Amino acid sequence: MTALTDSGIAALRSETPGCQHVVHFNHAGSSLMPQRVIDAVVAHTVREGEIGGYEAEDEAADRIDAVYDQVAGLINADRGEVAMIENATRAWDMVFYAIPFASGDRILTSIAEYHSNVIAFYQVRKRGVLIEVVPNDQYGQMDVDALADMMDERVRLVAVSHMPTNGGLVQPAEEIGRVVAQWPALYLLDACQSIGQKPIDVQAVGCHMLSASARKYLRGPRGQGFLYVNQTVIDQLEPPMLDGHAAMWSSRDSYELMPDARRFENWERSFANILGMGDAVALAMIIGVDRIWERILRQATRLRERLSALPGVTLTDVGEVQSGIVTFMIDSWPPGDIQAQLNARSINVTTSTRSSTRFDMEARGLDEVVRSSIHYLTTDEEIETLIAALAESRYPGRARGILT
Amino acid sequence: MTALTDSGIAALRSETPGCQHVVHFNHAGSSLMPQRVIDAVVAHTVREGEIGGYEAEDEAADRIDAVYDQVAGLINADRGEVAMIENATRAWDMVFYAIPFASGDRILTSIAEYHSNVIAFYQVRKRGVLIEVVPNDQYGQMDVDALADMMDERVRLVAVSHMPTNGGLVQPAEEIGRVVAQWPALYLLDACQSIGQKPIDVQAVGCHMLSASARKYLRGPRGQGFLYVNQTVIDQLEPPMLDGHAAMWSSRDSYELMPDARRFENWERSFANILGMGDAVALAMIIGVDRIWERILRQATRLRERLSALPGVTLTDVGEVQSGIVTFMIDSWPPGDIQAQLNARSINVTTSTRSSTRFDMEARGLDEVVRSSIHYLTTDEEIETLIAALAESRYPGRARGILT
Repeated sequence: MTALTDSGIAALRSETPGCQHVVHFNHAGSSLMPQRVIDAVVAHTVREGEIGGYEAEDEAADRIDAVYDQVAGLINADRGEVAMIENATRAWDMVFYAIPFASGDRILTSIAEYHSNVIAFYQVRKRGVLIEVVPNDQYGQMDVDALADMMDERVRLVAVSHMPTNGGLVQPAEEIGRVVAQWPALYLLDACQSIGQKPIDVQAVGCHMLSASARKYLRGPRGQGFLYVNQTVIDQLEPPMLDGHAAMWSSRDSYELMPDARRFENWERSFANILGMGDAVALAMIIGVDRIWERILRQATRLRERLSALPGVTLTDVGEVQSGIVTFMIDSWPPGDIQAQLNARSINVTTSTRSSTRFDMEARGLDEVVRSSIHYLTTDEEIETLIAALAESRYPGRARGILT
Repeated sequence: MTALTDSGIAALRSETPGCQHVVHFNHAGSSLMPQRVIDAVVAHTVREGEIGGYEAEDEAADRIDAVYDQVAGLINADRGEVAMIENATRAWDMVFYAIPFASGDRILTSIAEYHSNVIAFYQVRKRGVLIEVVPNDQYGQMDVDALADMMDERVRLVAVSHMPTNGGLVQPAEEIGRVVAQWPALYLLDACQSIGQKPIDVQAVGCHMLSASARKYLRGPRGQGFLYVNQTVIDQLEPPMLDGHAAMWSSRDSYELMPDARRFENWERSFANILGMGDAVALAMIIGVDRIWERILRQATRLRERLSALPGVTLTDVGEVQSGIVTFMIDSWPPGDIQAQLNARSINVTTSTRSSTRFDMEARGLDEVVRSSIHYLTTDEEIETLIAALAESRYPGRARGILT
């Protein structure tokens, strides 16, 4: 593997309109689309206007079909195991709520789990399902030995957010997979922030199901995601909602589910966004996700080092390996104010609040952190711009220059 | 009300790129977007590329928010009763599957019901819910007297497709509403093909819930729809899927549903498509849906008259009032072949097959019909182009000129 070079990054930045407008540290929210993705979405939308929405879909049928192969290639799956879904949360939902939970079934999850997933757990808890949180190890990531101890025949699902929303933690997805493989449980990996950031091979991870978003590290459009479901478990899973695409009204009194992952899709979709996601996946494959991950690790380390050198800064990332999602706090400076100050300088950061990852934030006594998520696009200069802006910013009740 | 004039239509067509490219008789599938809708979708997509997806959402927050008011205004609802959902089927699903059906509950539906809805009925039938089909009256539409006879305390839901996919039928939505209002049942109107075609006032219809698509008669983008849920029933309805937008992880061990229709939404959406739908609704309101409906009725009548004059043509529309969805068959000429012949001449029609509306198609002995759906954009010249193309087309096994 050859590392991404500065000139390679410069070329990728030159194909990214946003790099001329903003200093973007919100790649984990929604990254900056490359021109090719914008072009794909726009071109299909314009074409729909020229010849009609269904007719444009027919015309693009081969390219739409190819997106299944592209996504399958990205994660080492079969194309029949891939469903195009409007976002990662709905992808997760479509398969989570398809699991035929029975009273007494156990769901094991992580401390850093995302609110949308926990709310879904609590919704099925009404059916008598038990929700249990696996403790962390010394690195702040899921303790795989503890997980192994908690496993039994009643565990129906192990559900883990691969890279949580509120910091650099990377859960040990493959180690978790090896534990789950010894039991009848299903393993659902929420990869919404890891897809496109770190290589993911679903065979190596051993997950039965994986949900992912286009807009984050894949740099695709908003309102698009995908779902992977291993063929060996599809038959067990009847989606919580069905339409005339996911199933066929085969006789007057019955329906038949699609045999593959299409059963999790719905018929009407934004094909402009699917095509955009396809081009985003293609770019990730051209660059190489292993090289992307190496670059992200390097730039994230640099950002953490530079932040650490500022007085009053506390980094809030945990985990043995830390991703491009860099989070921090600054003494007596509310995260929301930091975000506002930076945004006013066209530096995009966001914040992560307690209610999004309550188990983790409560355990660590955190209310809110600033999230400055980088990507391979992030340059040393951008990092210095962020650091300088933090150092220079005035803020209520604090003297100028406190950070310098 | 002043009728739409030829010059008004010419102006609307001049703002519709598709009118220069195709003769579109597939408005009930996906209509032709006006330039303003294309521009709205494209501009927001480009802006996402310039400043980031979340940042573009923030920048457009007021305009996104206004779409709730626009949709509410279109159907005479309150903005808190409107949810933005990725398409009409998912909008329908989110509220249908939210109904807490119990064994023995009855669902009454129409003969012309759409396959996606029937498959959903059959899915909840596994819980002991009874699915019953209300007979038609002499016009081929739901027999409102029969409905009244079938109503009782056990009817949990009356679910009706306002304008079915396979023909010009317009169900008597208001009359149905008056019957349902006398009982505790919920009333769900699938308005995916009527919204933007015919004025719909949810207060006058009396439906508790209504699902609608952007891409059809509203002329909005694909992959976008909306849901209306009357505020008085929202509290009874816990959506079948929840995320951190629809509900809040309010304490370690519990969640709280949003009090309004946002509980049916999901957090991640295509804001480009929502803004596009907003502009589509705005255009419908500027024109006036009453004027649109009058124009559609006039042009649909003209098309039916011209089709009837061709030898071998059978019109397959039923209903006392017939919408812009015009369907027909031609002796010994398979609908798929007709579609292919017309499409080759850039005349967009589609077909409707038995499995999409099986109750109705079986009852009428129909396998497949050609669907040539018009909109207010449809001109007399386009109708003549379609008729001439049918008359002139060659087709296997038939002599040339059979239709002339």
